[in-house]
Amino acid sequence: MGLQLYDLAGAEPERRFSPYCWRSKMALVHKGLPFDTIPWRFTDKDVIAFSGQGRVPVLVDGDQFVFDSWTIATYLEDAYADRPSLFRGEGGRAVTRFVNAWADGVLVGLILRLIATDIFAHLDEKDRAYFRETREKRLGATLETVSADRETNVLAFRKTLEPIRTVLAAQPYFGGEVPAYADYAVFGCFQWARCISSFPLLLEPDPVWAWRDRLLSAFDGFAGKALGYSV
Amino acid sequence: MGLQLYDLAGAEPERRFSPYCWRSKMALVHKGLPFDTIPWRFTDKDVIAFSGQGRVPVLVDGDQFVFDSWTIATYLEDAYADRPSLFRGEGGRAVTRFVNAWADGVLVGLILRLIATDIFAHLDEKDRAYFRETREKRLGATLETVSADRETNVLAFRKTLEPIRTVLAAQPYFGGEVPAYADYAVFGCFQWARCISSFPLLLEPDPVWAWRDRLLSAFDGFAGKALGYSV
Repeated sequence: MGLQLYDLAGAEPERRFSPYCWRSKMALVHKGLPFDTIPWRFTDKDVIAFSGQGRVPVLVDGDQFVFDSWTIATYLEDAYADRPSLFRGEGGRAVTRFVNAWADGVLVGLILRLIATDIFAHLDEKDRAYFRETREKRLGATLETVSADRETNVLAFRKTLEPIRTVLAAQPYFGGEVPAYADYAVFGCFQWARCISSFPLLLEPDPVWAWRDRLLSAFDGFAGKALGYSV
Repeated sequence: MGLQLYDLAGAEPERRFSPYCWRSKMALVHKGLPFDTIPWRFTDKDVIAFSGQGRVPVLVDGDQFVFDSWTIATYLEDAYADRPSLFRGEGGRAVTRFVNAWADGVLVGLILRLIATDIFAHLDEKDRAYFRETREKRLGATLETVSADRETNVLAFRKTLEPIRTVLAAQPYFGGEVPAYADYAVFGCFQWARCISSFPLLLEPDPVWAWRDRLLSAFDGFAGKALGYSV
């Protein structure tokens, strides 16, 4: 039996939008590993209770399971060491943690404020109360309130991407000449938005747009084919 | 003849405070390379005119010279490949660019606003007009104006360090179990402040304080011995 990934879905089973699940899916295609995804909703806690926790991604590999996107990445790197590396060395693995932490701590929070109502609109009916309650508690405001200023907030968001532009002025990927997990850690955040919202986070002349476009096209257009919006 | 580094100094020749020069000095001690520093002031443009540009650090290695802290790091990594690695692999080198860019684009700007008047106060007389003019143009305000709100601004600055704390919860250094150039890229910013300002950027219970303390003690306390303030 091949690898299986529990993957967050919206009302439409093919709408897969979790930034963390996107990281794991890109890591799997980078490794060239065949896998199936299982659509999962926020409230399907019982379905992944076997993992001892209640969030996706959860990767099942034979009789093993792994959860948490970072742990999945390091699991894949070590268990499939003969496949293309996600980190290219111990230094890469260690320093990628910072990129991952920056994406989690900075990008995820800012993007959530830009797309909160769009996420809500695409959720399965059974997930809506859960999402609204947990996110409004985290944000300290209603989904509608945080999204109301998004035309202004997206300008500040784009400025936050400046360190990415500095990197891309010197090399095509965070990973250097080839993409690496550091790319997927950040790309997952943009793919989250693109799969659930028509609100444009990036503008086309931006080198970050061009970088994202290269990753949408990578691996036979794996990410680019996903159900989403052309923004 | 050993290596020589042109190193920014204040009125006191031993007050060395450039964040970029600190990166290069930490890279040199990491590599275990003996070197001399040459105190240099902002307006000593003619002294380094041989390099074709007007900023430090400039490294002189026999009949070669290298400028720009990132270029110096990659030069040292390649020219002294048999010495302890600054990047531990090609993945590490590539991804460290992001850490370096984040430190440059985020930390340097925020810290400058916290210590601008302290830098001015420590400069050699001949550098003061140059520093005030170039920095006030960059900041869009007087040094005194940007520093006035520092008790408030330092709180936002400390929140910006959150991705560092996430990394340090998992490993002692950006580089993993051992420090790497990614550590020095960020540490240089804190050392800049510590060498020129008594204003406390960090508080002692902060894991970032503990990380900085480990780096102050590293290499026989090389950075900790520098002329500065115990903050």
